[in-house]
Amino acid sequence: MAIKVTVWNEFRHEKNSEEVKAVYPNGMHTVIAEYLGKEADFDLKTATLDEPEHGLTDDVLNNTDVLIWWGHMAHGDVQDTIVEKVKRRVLEDGMGLIVLHSGHFSKIFQALMGTTCALSWREAAEKERLWSVMPQHPILEGIPLYFELEHEEMYGEFFDIPTPDELIMLSWFKGGDVFRSAACWVKGAGKVFYFRPGHESYPTFYNENVLKVIKNGVRYVNAPAGMSKIDHRNAAAPIEEL
Amino acid sequence: MAIKVTVWNEFRHEKNSEEVKAVYPNGMHTVIAEYLGKEADFDLKTATLDEPEHGLTDDVLNNTDVLIWWGHMAHGDVQDTIVEKVKRRVLEDGMGLIVLHSGHFSKIFQALMGTTCALSWREAAEKERLWSVMPQHPILEGIPLYFELEHEEMYGEFFDIPTPDELIMLSWFKGGDVFRSAACWVKGAGKVFYFRPGHESYPTFYNENVLKVIKNGVRYVNAPAGMSKIDHRNAAAPIEEL
Amino acid sequence: MAIKVTVWNEFRHEKNSEEVKAVYPNGMHTVIAEYLGKEADFDLKTATLDEPEHGLTDDVLNNTDVLIWWGHMAHGDVQDTIVEKVKRRVLEDGMGLIVLHSGHFSKIFQALMGTTCALSWREAAEKERLWSVMPQHPILEGIPLYFELEHEEMYGEFFDIPTPDELIMLSWFKGGDVFRSAACWVKGAGKVFYFRPGHESYPTFYNENVLKVIKNGVRYVNAPAGMSKIDHRNAAAPIEEL
Amino acid sequence: MAIKVTVWNEFRHEKNSEEVKAVYPNGMHTVIAEYLGKEADFDLKTATLDEPEHGLTDDVLNNTDVLIWWGHMAHGDVQDTIVEKVKRRVLEDGMGLIVLHSGHFSKIFQALMGTTCALSWREAAEKERLWSVMPQHPILEGIPLYFELEHEEMYGEFFDIPTPDELIMLSWFKGGDVFRSAACWVKGAGKVFYFRPGHESYPTFYNENVLKVIKNGVRYVNAPAGMSKIDHRNAAAPIEEL
Repeated sequence: MAIKVTVWNEFRHEKNSEEVKAVYPNGMHTVIAEYLGKEADFDLKTATLDEPEHGLTDDVLNNTDVLIWWGHMAHGDVQDTIVEKVKRRVLEDGMGLIVLHSGHFSKIFQALMGTTCALSWREAAEKERLWSVMPQHPILEGIPLYFELEHEEMYGEFFDIPTPDELIMLSWFKGGDVFRSAACWVKGAGKVFYFRPGHESYPTFYNENVLKVIKNGVRYVNAPAGMSKIDHRNAAAPIEEL
Repeated sequence: MAIKVTVWNEFRHEKNSEEVKAVYPNGMHTVIAEYLGKEADFDLKTATLDEPEHGLTDDVLNNTDVLIWWGHMAHGDVQDTIVEKVKRRVLEDGMGLIVLHSGHFSKIFQALMGTTCALSWREAAEKERLWSVMPQHPILEGIPLYFELEHEEMYGEFFDIPTPDELIMLSWFKGGDVFRSAACWVKGAGKVFYFRPGHESYPTFYNENVLKVIKNGVRYVNAPAGMSKIDHRNAAAPIEEL
Repeated sequence: MAIKVTVWNEFRHEKNSEEVKAVYPNGMHTVIAEYLGKEADFDLKTATLDEPEHGLTDDVLNNTDVLIWWGHMAHGDVQDTIVEKVKRRVLEDGMGLIVLHSGHFSKIFQALMGTTCALSWREAAEKERLWSVMPQHPILEGIPLYFELEHEEMYGEFFDIPTPDELIMLSWFKGGDVFRSAACWVKGAGKVFYFRPGHESYPTFYNENVLKVIKNGVRYVNAPAGMSKIDHRNAAAPIEEL
Repeated sequence: MAIKVTVWNEFRHEKNSEEVKAVYPNGMHTVIAEYLGKEADFDLKTATLDEPEHGLTDDVLNNTDVLIWWGHMAHGDVQDTIVEKVKRRVLEDGMGLIVLHSGHFSKIFQALMGTTCALSWREAAEKERLWSVMPQHPILEGIPLYFELEHEEMYGEFFDIPTPDELIMLSWFKGGDVFRSAACWVKGAGKVFYFRPGHESYPTFYNENVLKVIKNGVRYVNAPAGMSKIDHRNAAAPIEEL
C-alpha cells in the first residue's frame, strides 16, 4: 500500500528573494517532492502557506500518512485551527511528521514538543559535518558515519527540546558549535522526526545524503499498517473480580 | 536557602460534595501544605482556582520554586493567560512542577507534554499497589519497594504521555489494569513530575508514603541553585576562525 | 533478501519432564520455528544446547541475522567462548537478538545488559494480562491494546535491567505484581528485544499474539540492509585545519 | 553523613613518562582528591593499580560510597575478581561510579555498559569546547553553558555506549569531531557517570570547570540515604487471592 506523503512549504522566501529563487526556482517543496516521488510506493502531494487553508484541507490531511514541514519567516501566519488539526491527526491517527530546519520554531513543532524550541544560530555559510550516533537506525540506512555540507546556517545548543526518544545525528560546525541534528519522538499514536539542515539560501535539498535521510524518515515515521486504534473507552477491558 | 512551594488546588469538590468535604474539610491543598510545611527548609503557600488570578499572581509565581497542581472538574475554567505564565516559568526560569492525579488533564500538563494525556479510568474503590521500578531514584527515598492504597480510582493504560525521561513507579490495580504512576520529564530549564494517586473521595493525601513521595518530589524538581541561565543569544560564544 | 533466523533452545525441560514434553513434544524451538517459517522472507534454522558448540558454530552464527534465545535450567552449561562470539556478533555485526522468558538469566543477556537481570517470580499458574504502552511500535503491529494468557509463571518487579530504550508492554498478574514485559535496547551495531512470556509448562508458544510479537520482533531487530559498518579507525575523517 | 569517595588511578604514566610527571608529579588521583577533599562532607581516599588488590580491598570497597576511575595503558592488568567486586558493589549496594577519560576502555566500564565502548581518537593537542545540553542537571551546577580546554586529546563518535539515561554535555573539537562527553546510566541499585576530559599529558585536572563537574558528579551518583535495599526474594509481597 502506498505511503501518502504531503510536503508542506511556507514558500515565501522563494518568491521574495532573488537569491533564494536562484537556488529553488519552484520552491524547496518541489525539489523534495520530486526526489521522494521516485520511490515506487510513495504517493506525493505538496501544499503551501498561501493556498486556501494552507493547502491542508480536511481531505488532504485525512489522506496524508506523513507530513513534511518547512517554515521560517511566517510561522505566525499559520492559522491555529490548522495547527490543531495537524496535531490531532498526529496524536490520534498516527500521522507521521517530519520537521525540517527552521520549522523548529513552527507552531506545530512547539505544540508537540511542549517547549520553546529555541536555539542559537549564526549565518556564516560555514561548514557542517553531521555525525551518526545511532548507526543502526533505519533513518541512517545508506548514510555514511558522517557527511558534510560545505555551507550551512549554524544552529547551536542549547536547543530547547524535550529529551529525544532517539538521538540519531550530531552536527559539528566549523565556528565552534554542536547541535542535536536528527532526533525522533513518539507522540500519541504518531512519530515526529526533526532534521536540522535546510537553510533556504543553500542547495542543501539537492544533497543526496540529506534527501536520503528524509526518504528514510518518511518510512520510519509512517505508522504500522496494523496498528491498534487507541481507544480511551478501553477501560472496557473485562474487569477482574474485585 | 528555603524552597518556596505553592500548592494549587481547584478546591471545588471539597465545597460541592458532602462526601469529599468529609475527607478534606479544608481542601486537599491544606493537607498537603501542612505535611510539607514540617520541612524546615520548605516555605509553603497555597492558591486556589476561585481566588483572583487563581491565586497565581506574578508576585506569587515569581516567588514559587515548585508548584504542585491538583485539578479535575474545572480544567476549562483556568485562564489561558495564567497557564501560559506557568509554562514560561517552568521552561525559562526552571520552576519545578508536580502534577497530581486528575491534573493529568489540566491545560498546563497537556501544554507541557504536547499530547492528549488521555487515559482509561474506573471508579470502583479498588486496591492499588505501587511498585518501584527505579529504587535508587531520590523521589523514592524512604519508600518501600511497593506500597498499597486500599481504595483508589483506577487509572489505566494506554496513558497518552511522551516517553518519560524517568519512569519511577508502576501501579497494579486489582481490577486488571496497570499504569505508569510516577514519571519525570525535563522541560526547558525545569522539571515536571507526574504522580498518579489522589482521588478526591479517598483519604489518599493522608497516606504517609504518598506524602513522602510528594515531599521528595519537591526536592527533586527544584532547580539547582547554581544553574546557568539559558540565554539564546549565546551564539555569542566566540566564533572560531572560519 | 531473506532474514536468516536461528531459534536457539536449551531443550532440556522437554526431554526431562513428562509434563513439559506433553506440551512441547519436539521442543519449544520447533513450535516457534514452524510459525516463523510461514513468513515467505524468513529463512529458519534451530540450534540447541547439547549439539556440538551448542549448534552455534561460526558458520551458523555468521549466517544468522536474528537469534532467538530460550534457556532456563542450564544457563551455566553454555560455554563462555560461545557467549562471547554471540556478543561480538551483536555489537560489531548488528545481529539482532530476541531473549525469551527465563533467558533473562542467560549469560548472553546479562553480558549485554551489564546488570544482574534478577527479578521476582512465582509459579501459581495465574492469569497474565499484557498491556501496550507504545501502541505505535512495529513490534505491536496487529496486537490488541491488551491480551491475556490464562496461565503463566509470574515475573515481577524489581527487574534489574538498564533503562529500556523502548518500553513496549507491561504485564499485570492476578496475584498482585507488574512487570516490564517487552523492551528493546540498542547495543553497538545491534538491537536486543526481551519478551517475558514463555514458561515451559504452559502452551504459551501456541498463543497467536505471543507468536505475532516474536515475528514482529524478528523484523524489528534485523539490521537495516544498508547500515554503515562501524569502523573505529574512522578518525580518518579528514582533519580540519588546527 | 559524609560521602566516602575513593579516587582510583592506574598511576603508571606519571611514573613512566617525564612529560606526564611534569604535569602530575604525585599522580592525577592526588590532584583530584585534594580538590574534592575541600568539601566538608566528603571523606577522601585514593587507591592505585600497583597496590595489593589494586588498593581495592573488601574493607576499602565496603567503605566507598563513590568510586572514581582513571585507567589507560594497563586495563588488562586489573584482576577480574576485583572488577567483579566493584560491579557487584555498584549493582547490588548502589555504590556510585565515575569513569574518567580513557577509563572508557576499562574492564569495569565495559562490563557495566555491555558494549565495546570503542571510540575514535586523535592526539593533536587541539581545542575542545564542551556544551551543556541539559543545563538544569545537578552535575552542571555552577558550570557555564559551554567551557573550553585549550589542549586535549580528541575523542570522537561513534562512541559505542548504550543510550545514555541522561546525556549532559557534548564536545566540539577543532579538528572536526563531536562526542557525547558527559552521560549517566542507572545500573542496578547504582549510578554510573562517564566524563570525557582528562588526558594524562595536559593539565586538565587543574581546570576549575572539570573539577566542579567531578565534584557535582560525586553528589549525583551517591545513593540516597534512605534507599530501599533491592531484595529479590520480595515476591514475598502478599499474594492477592487467585
